[in-house]
Amino acid sequence: MLDYNHYLALVDEAVKGLSFPAQPRGLYEPIEYTLDCGGKRLRPVLTLAACESMGADPSAAINQAMAIEMFHNFTLLHDDVMDHADVRRGRPTVHVRWDERTAILSGDAMLTKSAMLLGVNVGEARLRAASELFNATAMSIYEGQQMDINFESRLDVTVGEYMEMIRLKTSVLLGCAASLGALMADADDDARRLFYDFGVDLGLAFQLQDDYLDTYGDPATFGKAIGGDILNDKKTWLLITALSEDKTGKVKALLGPAENPQEKIAAMREAYDALGLPERIHGLIAQYIDSAIKSLDRIGLAPEAREFFVDLALKSATRKK
Amino acid sequence: MLDYNHYLALVDEAVKGLSFPAQPRGLYEPIEYTLDCGGKRLRPVLTLAACESMGADPSAAINQAMAIEMFHNFTLLHDDVMDHADVRRGRPTVHVRWDERTAILSGDAMLTKSAMLLGVNVGEARLRAASELFNATAMSIYEGQQMDINFESRLDVTVGEYMEMIRLKTSVLLGCAASLGALMADADDDARRLFYDFGVDLGLAFQLQDDYLDTYGDPATFGKAIGGDILNDKKTWLLITALSEDKTGKVKALLGPAENPQEKIAAMREAYDALGLPERIHGLIAQYIDSAIKSLDRIGLAPEAREFFVDLALKSATRKK
Repeated sequence: MLDYNHYLALVDEAVKGLSFPAQPRGLYEPIEYTLDCGGKRLRPVLTLAACESMGADPSAAINQAMAIEMFHNFTLLHDDVMDHADVRRGRPTVHVRWDERTAILSGDAMLTKSAMLLGVNVGEARLRAASELFNATAMSIYEGQQMDINFESRLDVTVGEYMEMIRLKTSVLLGCAASLGALMADADDDARRLFYDFGVDLGLAFQLQDDYLDTYGDPATFGKAIGGDILNDKKTWLLITALSEDKTGKVKALLGPAENPQEKIAAMREAYDALGLPERIHGLIAQYIDSAIKSLDRIGLAPEAREFFVDLALKSATRKK
Repeated sequence: MLDYNHYLALVDEAVKGLSFPAQPRGLYEPIEYTLDCGGKRLRPVLTLAACESMGADPSAAINQAMAIEMFHNFTLLHDDVMDHADVRRGRPTVHVRWDERTAILSGDAMLTKSAMLLGVNVGEARLRAASELFNATAMSIYEGQQMDINFESRLDVTVGEYMEMIRLKTSVLLGCAASLGALMADADDDARRLFYDFGVDLGLAFQLQDDYLDTYGDPATFGKAIGGDILNDKKTWLLITALSEDKTGKVKALLGPAENPQEKIAAMREAYDALGLPERIHGLIAQYIDSAIKSLDRIGLAPEAREFFVDLALKSATRKK
């Protein structure tokens, strides 16, 4: 097994090696811009590591890893249009730097390109399994995005609905990434399913930590302003839990446009603190990490491989950015 | 061989039979709305007819026909967002009836769903060929849409560039539709390529007739207002040819916002008439139909099948709506 940075280097090299037609520039330049984002590359790293842990060379899954990374970046591109988000990873989003129709069309091309990458160097027997997993995952992600949109106009979202939403919108892609890596090493159905479950639990922990960091992170390490979710009344685990336990109506009263943004953030954080939410969300994250490691242990990995994935899970749960 | 209406009925029945999850409604309802459009269903009919003409039951290609129809409607949905078009086939477009992000997300789901349909009841051996044709076609279509966008800000578009744009944006999907039908009947490479060429030439003729009808059609049968392309300075074969032969600068002077729209349409039509463009575009259409029929004749179809496709080609070239 390689370490994270080695897998990351393989992914970055492969992404750099992708070549697009010279014309029309308006279609392909935004794709290169989107992929050239730095970023953790967590999903493609999962694919390569799962592949190697099942006994194949990671290069056997490099095109599938890129398919996952391409797909992930497509969803970010279109989500940013839908959310009118101006900045992504410290740079203007595509619809800001170019325009909205460029963002829509380039995103469409990324989705098709991800399907093309998925099929490279896959034998006939694996192509169907890979396509079915990939397409089903994509549909789940759209469903999750739609649920997230629906939540905006609701105050009665339950924690159960929220967990289902982040499972669909975020976690299944990590499950797909890991399972696809195992598939490329010809792992059996059980191992592929366990890798899928591992990835999904990891994804849930990852997203909950995201919710935590947006409110409680250190702005210096987090890389973006703290409190954005609070200012946008974003239905996160923190807000949904607080609303459902809000006997006095104090949390609900804080919703809406803020005259003083910093005061709103501080007041909401105080309400969360009073309910013990920082500790409780970390308890929940720990449960998902436990569950992820249980799936891992049922695969029967070599000690070195197990250690890699356990380490990845623990780092995702405790990351500061 | 069945007649057009029988293939159409097969497609309509299959589209009606598509079932989507009940939730989230916001994702799936716009897809049903988009598919329930009536429409000529020319592309899926081509798929079914090509399949039957190569000796298989048309039902063998019904899922692939639906994949093509789903994909086509996805492109219309996203194009309408990009073009800010409010009406499609006499009904409000999705981004008008719902909103823009619904249109983007539902379109994404249609693209993935089309990939899923493509794989239904396809043996392993055919899945790769079908996917590669389908994905390459999709990329061509995005390139064509980008070229079309680029043309908006240019006055020096050549007829050659225009023909390449409509080949990519419109025609390759008809080629793909026909070739895919032949593939589903296990036709050999030659027959599949000839069906592809037939579809592409048919598509070029179809689009040129579209350009003609938008300016010269009978509003009563065409189903939408005449002159929209002229009012929008749309770079069609007519305008591009007129601009390139515009010695006096009269055509160029007509471009831009019109004080009196009907006067602009009449003046532009007069300029086109003076250059003999109605006759010349029909000469060009006839050339593409000739070329389409030449491809057809090289396939070696049974007389009844040949007649079906020749009839389809001639009707596309002379259609009034």
